[in-house]
Amino acid sequence: MATQVQALYDFTGEPGTTEMSITCGEVLTLLNTEIGEGWWEGKKSNGETGLFPAAYVRKLTPEESIQTKAAPPAPRYDQAADDWGEQHYSAGDNNYQRGVSHEDGWDDDWEDDTYSEIGPAQQQNKTSQYNQQSSIVIPGMPINDYNQHIDDTSSNYSSSVGTVRKNKFAPSSKISGESYLLATLNVEVPDSEKVYIIQDEDGYIWSPITQPYIVTVASPKKESKFKGIKSFIAYQLTPSFNNIQVSRRYKHFDWLHERLQEKFTLIPIPPLPDKQISGRYDEQLIERRRVQLQEFVDWMCKHPVLSRSEVWQHFLTCTDEKRWKAGKRQAEKDNLLGLNYCVSLVVPEKALLQSQVDHITEQCHTFINSVDTAIKSVSSMCIVQTKRFQGPYKSDCQKIGEAFYSLGNALSLDEGTIVSTSKLTSAIKMTGGVYIDIGRMYDEQPKYDWEPLGDKFHLYKGIAASFPDVLANHKGAVQKKRECERLTAENKMEVAQLNEVLRRTDVISYALLAEINHFKSERTVDIKATMQKFLKQQINFYKKIVDKLETTLRYYDD
Amino acid sequence: MATQVQALYDFTGEPGTTEMSITCGEVLTLLNTEIGEGWWEGKKSNGETGLFPAAYVRKLTPEESIQTKAAPPAPRYDQAADDWGEQHYSAGDNNYQRGVSHEDGWDDDWEDDTYSEIGPAQQQNKTSQYNQQSSIVIPGMPINDYNQHIDDTSSNYSSSVGTVRKNKFAPSSKISGESYLLATLNVEVPDSEKVYIIQDEDGYIWSPITQPYIVTVASPKKESKFKGIKSFIAYQLTPSFNNIQVSRRYKHFDWLHERLQEKFTLIPIPPLPDKQISGRYDEQLIERRRVQLQEFVDWMCKHPVLSRSEVWQHFLTCTDEKRWKAGKRQAEKDNLLGLNYCVSLVVPEKALLQSQVDHITEQCHTFINSVDTAIKSVSSMCIVQTKRFQGPYKSDCQKIGEAFYSLGNALSLDEGTIVSTSKLTSAIKMTGGVYIDIGRMYDEQPKYDWEPLGDKFHLYKGIAASFPDVLANHKGAVQKKRECERLTAENKMEVAQLNEVLRRTDVISYALLAEINHFKSERTVDIKATMQKFLKQQINFYKKIVDKLETTLRYYDD
Repeated sequence: MATQVQALYDFTGEPGTTEMSITCGEVLTLLNTEIGEGWWEGKKSNGETGLFPAAYVRKLTPEESIQTKAAPPAPRYDQAADDWGEQHYSAGDNNYQRGVSHEDGWDDDWEDDTYSEIGPAQQQNKTSQYNQQSSIVIPGMPINDYNQHIDDTSSNYSSSVGTVRKNKFAPSSKISGESYLLATLNVEVPDSEKVYIIQDEDGYIWSPITQPYIVTVASPKKESKFKGIKSFIAYQLTPSFNNIQVSRRYKHFDWLHERLQEKFTLIPIPPLPDKQISGRYDEQLIERRRVQLQEFVDWMCKHPVLSRSEVWQHFLTCTDEKRWKAGKRQAEKDNLLGLNYCVSLVVPEKALLQSQVDHITEQCHTFINSVDTAIKSVSSMCIVQTKRFQGPYKSDCQKIGEAFYSLGNALSLDEGTIVSTSKLTSAIKMTGGVYIDIGRMYDEQPKYDWEPLGDKFHLYKGIAASFPDVLANHKGAVQKKRECERLTAENKMEVAQLNEVLRRTDVISYALLAEINHFKSERTVDIKATMQKFLKQQINFYKKIVDKLETTLRYYDD
Repeated sequence: MATQVQALYDFTGEPGTTEMSITCGEVLTLLNTEIGEGWWEGKKSNGETGLFPAAYVRKLTPEESIQTKAAPPAPRYDQAADDWGEQHYSAGDNNYQRGVSHEDGWDDDWEDDTYSEIGPAQQQNKTSQYNQQSSIVIPGMPINDYNQHIDDTSSNYSSSVGTVRKNKFAPSSKISGESYLLATLNVEVPDSEKVYIIQDEDGYIWSPITQPYIVTVASPKKESKFKGIKSFIAYQLTPSFNNIQVSRRYKHFDWLHERLQEKFTLIPIPPLPDKQISGRYDEQLIERRRVQLQEFVDWMCKHPVLSRSEVWQHFLTCTDEKRWKAGKRQAEKDNLLGLNYCVSLVVPEKALLQSQVDHITEQCHTFINSVDTAIKSVSSMCIVQTKRFQGPYKSDCQKIGEAFYSLGNALSLDEGTIVSTSKLTSAIKMTGGVYIDIGRMYDEQPKYDWEPLGDKFHLYKGIAASFPDVLANHKGAVQKKRECERLTAENKMEVAQLNEVLRRTDVISYALLAEINHFKSERTVDIKATMQKFLKQQINFYKKIVDKLETTLRYYDD
């Protein structure tokens, strides 16, 4: 029997390539695992065949059980000039958990030559010996813990609280979530780390940012190490609060993103650029990634909770190897993950009405479903329009231009000495040139309108895609609360403990309500600005066409 | 062995249909003659298969001889609501000459109900009995003469003087041309019918029109006869010199066109609309034909020779059945066809230098070759652009509009009571509406720019396509002249006769030079105006887009 795989996530194949879109939960027949670069080939039930990232599916065994065996060697991070498009899973591996073994290129790489990658890029050529040994056990890497959590999670996947989030590391949010909710977690959070939720006229909101800052992501540089043998793309980040540039590779962003997703299960984490960006040139591709990283960074900076988080601050500011490593290990050992993070929250002293909360979350659920579809369609429209502008629209204009130019040329063969004829033929040739120019404008234009719009909607696509998990995490907590209420009714739980559970469930609800409001107010401002910018660029484009045509028209005047 | 056919003319198939383009001289394998409506199916040597007009090819017999048997019954003109698209050749007929038998719908039809078709359309419902008999011998129809000419032409096709013109009636211009040139034709032309060629600063020109007029072709009406059983499209023509409207069907234009082509072998006759006009609706199609007929009529009116010709004047003015018939017969019996027409010309009393004439004709030949290609590419570009505007450009805009509209709609699900949100969502919906509107504009636009441009270049395509025949007719005369010079050198021709041949050859050359100049000055004025009009429409279009986008942008303002 042919091996079957099940999609773990949605994947949108690049149109016009051999890639195939797959939908989470979809079962496919596996055709070929030897494609390379992390791609597999499969066949859908409707007969469609194509490629998809091996990482996006899991093999179905007859028993459909997930065996948690040791992860095989993952592809080394530093084998490619850029980290993008690499898959952290090996083809033919039944275990879809990310390879976290000590062979992971990340840490390996780190030991040797960390500094040159994270500081301002001035030490990149310092000599260092590349450690070829690949089986060093890295201190601070809680392999056993992770494996345990994975075991735990995989067998209780659908029923547990706060584990819907598809973390590659399969975080232990189920346990940590429950330990907060059931009041078994009692950690004192220092005042400086407390996060307040307050009420304003629109409802409950995160206490606004007191010291706003921005971070600019500069055009990336190609850097190299190991005497130039290895090269990679590093993005230069400069926070406005200290003006100290740091250099970050995609893998650093990726690591950060995983930490944020583990920690903030009630806050959608903005997406990183994904593999499916269209672009004809490497430089274009790198620039698009930069813009999408800027979108990620902007969202982080504007978020009252995320912008203050320790791991983010560490990521933004650390330029020292030792401190980086220390911060990294600390982040990976963070206990306040998932719902446990809620111990940091200070909420209004008012019990929430469950029916009101239910109403808001249901409305949010409906809204997210609907807006997710709309965002996806805007997003794919941007890709299609970019291709249209750079493909047929451009070439149509060029064909028009060429036709007019040849006409002018042909007519000039017989213009003789008549002035009006030679004026006409040069005007026609000019017209041809203008249409060829307009063709070039079509080629350039997406950079100013469709691509930025697409980048913005890439962000919203990611946010909207995370929201159902956020809602499910909250729902899990509410269900747990109801269970406790039942237990208390059956005298199996003490009233005091139930009251603490109720209070903590409210904290979780407050967090969700604050986040829903944050998303709403952010997007209102942000989408408005985006649409204005987009329309201005479109207007500008068509105005330039008008200008060009008016100029050429004047050449026909006597 | 499969029957093979050889293309007699170039035919450009409509892209995206089953039609296939064929090139003059190309040999195809005949697959199917049962397609109907004058179409055959064939296969090219490269394997391409498709349809082409049966009339555009001849069957190759093993002996490759053309058998001039009696023409089989041609399709009746009045069997269709409109005459367009009908082929005047029968499938399976070896004789590619037009069927001119008495079964031709034209005369048949004429006998019964002529008046209602040619006068102002006020008598169209008058009762008349339809004569079903189809074998009446029509007086004035010189069948025998024509057959004789056809025989004559088909055996001497490539070598004779003045017969390169692809007249459907295969005019006897070879004979008539020679009889003029060899000075055996001596007809006195009344002064009123004489046409002068004069010299101005740009060279030899037709004496300009003294009484210019225009003729408007009004939107056609569907008329009917035989108590409504038959209906047809008739175009209303109103000349400015008398303001009397006449009603003409396409078949009348077609008849006129054939007379003009027979008579004026040194003047390219503007083309009639052809079958290959794209258009989605019948009404659009009819309107395009009207515009192309207007182009034909305009060119006729502006031509110093054509605008005065008797058959044209008859066509423009006759509203009376009897006079129409008389004029029609007279035109068909016209002796001054082809080069013989030159007896009407009065040219400067100055012998032309053959080398100068050769230079000009060679230049014209080069020019026409080159401009013909350019005109064809502009012309097909107009068709392509029309389809682009009405197809993908339109639907792209609509998709943009729909995506924005759905976004606005989805966002409005969660706008709550925040004013800025509801303002934003309605602005986004508005933006969606504007793009859908712009889509509609793309659909409408070709009517204002690409289609008129295409109609103009349809005219020039026809003129350019006729020019090689005109040049060949002239060249034939020059060759005949050289032959006469040789004969005289060999004492086989008298000097006096040679001198007359030389004089008459000069008249022919004067006519050609005047026509070359006419074409040049006409196109200079005409193409300039056309380009200006086109550019203005394009500017207007993009300005409207700018306006619409600016309006929608203002909705985002606070």
